[in-house]
Amino acid sequence: MFTLIIGNKNYSPWSLRPWLLLKMLDEPFKEQQIDLYLSDSKARILAANPAGKVPVLVDDKLRIWDSLAISEYLAECFPAAGLWPTDSALRAIARSIVAEVHSGFAALRENLPMDITLRQVDYESSPAVESDIARVIALWEEQRERHVADGEFLFGGFTIADACFAPICTCFQTYNVRLPERSQAYVRHILSLPAMQEWYSAAAAESKRPF
Amino acid sequence: MFTLIIGNKNYSPWSLRPWLLLKMLDEPFKEQQIDLYLSDSKARILAANPAGKVPVLVDDKLRIWDSLAISEYLAECFPAAGLWPTDSALRAIARSIVAEVHSGFAALRENLPMDITLRQVDYESSPAVESDIARVIALWEEQRERHVADGEFLFGGFTIADACFAPICTCFQTYNVRLPERSQAYVRHILSLPAMQEWYSAAAAESKRPF
Ligand SMILES: N[C@@H](CCC(=O)N[C@@H](CS)C(=O)NCC(=O)O)C(=O)O
Ligand SMILES: N[C@@H](CCC(=O)N[C@@H](CS)C(=O)NCC(=O)O)C(=O)O
Repeated sequence: MFTLIIGNKNYSPWSLRPWLLLKMLDEPFKEQQIDLYLSDSKARILAANPAGKVPVLVDDKLRIWDSLAISEYLAECFPAAGLWPTDSALRAIARSIVAEVHSGFAALRENLPMDITLRQVDYESSPAVESDIARVIALWEEQRERHVADGEFLFGGFTIADACFAPICTCFQTYNVRLPERSQAYVRHILSLPAMQEWYSAAAAESKRPF
Repeated sequence: MFTLIIGNKNYSPWSLRPWLLLKMLDEPFKEQQIDLYLSDSKARILAANPAGKVPVLVDDKLRIWDSLAISEYLAECFPAAGLWPTDSALRAIARSIVAEVHSGFAALRENLPMDITLRQVDYESSPAVESDIARVIALWEEQRERHVADGEFLFGGFTIADACFAPICTCFQTYNVRLPERSQAYVRHILSLPAMQEWYSAAAAESKRPF
């Protein structure tokens, strides 16, 4: 059985991504949590992963760190689950989106940090933040145009691209980000997934960080 | 035939990665360059890619942006080339390394920016920079331990992991970063590849940026 090492559900966007994938796969896994805000947290993270970060997926003797590498691994382990679109061109676009998010959106990350249980907070606007938000919306709307049938997920069925945006959806909710109606519907759809509700409940039950 | 849209060879680390992959594949491709330092550069980049970045791989009607998504696409197009290790566990490790580099190492990127033709420059040291450098060395040395035969590349044959580190190798040369002998040998090996020499010559022939 897989073990997934994650951080605080309230605060760790990178942990949410592979956790959600495993839930959507309906794959049983052990969860191991490291509280990221204790005095010995860094030592405990480094013991789990020399890169000094969560999440980590443990599969027997193999340790895969980084949420994107874990996602690719799960896509390979469960080829029938369609974690990437089956069409090669759509898969390339899905990977472009996910890799863009993986390496970018620094302003969004810094100024609208994930804080699952927080609500109705204003974020500090800046050109960099607004440009990141506009780019997320553009990516979503473009997928909506492509899928005329208006599938619930970005590529029809649930893919790694949706998992990648799940933390951003929670941030848009927390910080009251104004969205066009179709983007708002996408956020609602992601947040209403039973797995997301489960994550929210667990986050609400966690103790808050000390600052 | 593929078209690869790249930035200035002297300054664009993300462009170097897929360019090197295509060269190592011995795959003919058209190169289209956008000078990133002209007054209308941003408009020209945005016309090529709504994400506002280079590189972009154009394959007929398909546009793949982001160096990592391009790498995955090339690995799929040329399965026999071994752009990822064939062993599933090693592939997961290679992907972990590449995804870690893709999303991290901000201090390295900012303080030791790629500048191909520059030499013997001191970088400004800081805990964040030293920690990034130490992590790169740790990743390299760990691969050296794994491959007792001491393959020239990180996973024996050339993979996406080597392409991912190629710009970092040039930065270590530019900024005189002190390395353990085996890591130094790895840098030498990467920089002596004919494709890298070709990139260096082209970079040297380019006009410098205006600041
Ligand atoms: N690129 C990594 C980033 C992981 C990351 O930054 N994780 C944060 C928590 S969300 C972390 O471990 N922070 C603890 C620390 O840096 O000490 C991934 O995708 O897994
Ligand atoms: N995650 C992207 C990053 C690409 C990137 O940052 N490219 C730089 C050049 S190395 C760029 O296009 N800069 C121009 C700009 O931001 O206007 C990738 O891997 O392709």
